[in-house]
Amino acid sequence: MLDIIAFDADDTLWHTESLYAETQAKFARLLEPYQAAEAIAAVLHATEMRNLGDLGYGIKAFTLSMVEAAIELSGGRISGGEMGEVLSLGRAMLKAPVQLLDHAEAAVAQLAQTHTLMLMTKGDLLDQESKIERSGLARYFRYIEVVSDKTVASYSAILSKYQVPPERFLMVGNSLRSDILPVVALGGAAVHIPYHITWAHEAVSPSPEDEGKYSELEHLGLLPAWVDKWSAGHLQA
Amino acid sequence: MLDIIAFDADDTLWHTESLYAETQAKFARLLEPYQAAEAIAAVLHATEMRNLGDLGYGIKAFTLSMVEAAIELSGGRISGGEMGEVLSLGRAMLKAPVQLLDHAEAAVAQLAQTHTLMLMTKGDLLDQESKIERSGLARYFRYIEVVSDKTVASYSAILSKYQVPPERFLMVGNSLRSDILPVVALGGAAVHIPYHITWAHEAVSPSPEDEGKYSELEHLGLLPAWVDKWSAGHLQA
Repeated sequence: MLDIIAFDADDTLWHTESLYAETQAKFARLLEPYQAAEAIAAVLHATEMRNLGDLGYGIKAFTLSMVEAAIELSGGRISGGEMGEVLSLGRAMLKAPVQLLDHAEAAVAQLAQTHTLMLMTKGDLLDQESKIERSGLARYFRYIEVVSDKTVASYSAILSKYQVPPERFLMVGNSLRSDILPVVALGGAAVHIPYHITWAHEAVSPSPEDEGKYSELEHLGLLPAWVDKWSAGHLQA
Repeated sequence: MLDIIAFDADDTLWHTESLYAETQAKFARLLEPYQAAEAIAAVLHATEMRNLGDLGYGIKAFTLSMVEAAIELSGGRISGGEMGEVLSLGRAMLKAPVQLLDHAEAAVAQLAQTHTLMLMTKGDLLDQESKIERSGLARYFRYIEVVSDKTVASYSAILSKYQVPPERFLMVGNSLRSDILPVVALGGAAVHIPYHITWAHEAVSPSPEDEGKYSELEHLGLLPAWVDKWSAGHLQA
């Protein structure tokens, strides 16, 4: 039996990476007078990666990386007006409507009737709280945890905080790197539900050994039946 | 008796507002070619206040507000190089050494021997975690909570999460607005320890009625004795 079923949020319950992809496309159009599209994408990604340790995940960090990359890509020639447009791209992301993935609400509502649910996400605290509120899903989750990163150490801290043994913890998410591999490393159960786009930073290739330790589902609509079978001992996660 | 003694961090355990003040002074020197010092301070403050709802507290939000204010103050004429310097001001804040206030470590170490301590702070999750780590004080705190804002609702959520009745909760901090008034509104105990600078946003005038409901101490070194007296019933908070 499971004490807690935890869900990732971005690209698991609601669309996020598509919003980043659209914003990157707009950023590339804005910087078009200065550089080719490939260079723009490469410099923005390199800037994000360089800043990850200091700025962490989320829209504010991404906006600051866009500002920095815009200066670099334009060789310092970017105008104040263009920089204002870069800021507007970030602001629009914070205001973007929360769009639930197919099956998200039904799956969460059904599982909340029989299990304790947790939402576990990384990124900006305020932005994630705002999205949880606007998603309409907050009422299904007994616990909400916003963490600065999702690593073996952060999952271990959460399990010990809630006094849940790993084998009674299930994590559901779209990122092998953040949602699946750290949890199976601790001996927990994990269900991977791929999103149609994966941020390069989150893309990893699991070892064949790890691949045997989690399940993959096509969409959230299949999760309640999976949980039933798993709880009845008919499946190994 | 007290179940939890909670401490604010910025300007209660370590210096923060002085770092913002120094950075604002550097920002003003950078924008000097475009505007008078008073206008620079006023526009930056107005930009921060306008962004508070979307960006929240912390250094990333402050840096984004500096970028936006720099565009406005220069009438869009700011150069890429100058904008790069604005970003560097923000980056330097994230890297600034954590400087403990006088008496902070001794007071916290002493109280940790007899009480359960919580650190409760607002701002960027990652930056606050990094400061807590670098402060050397993490080991004294059983609980650490980073919240997006400190309101009656957020204190109420924390008290209910830890199942602590308000009358067994003491909050210690430098901000009347964030640390003291919401806690006394809930019936909790509060000790105000003013910092030598107060951010305009945090400055409030308590009502005479509220003033009777909390104590004021000159520095953290006086806190352990205050807690002893309070616990013995010799004081009303």
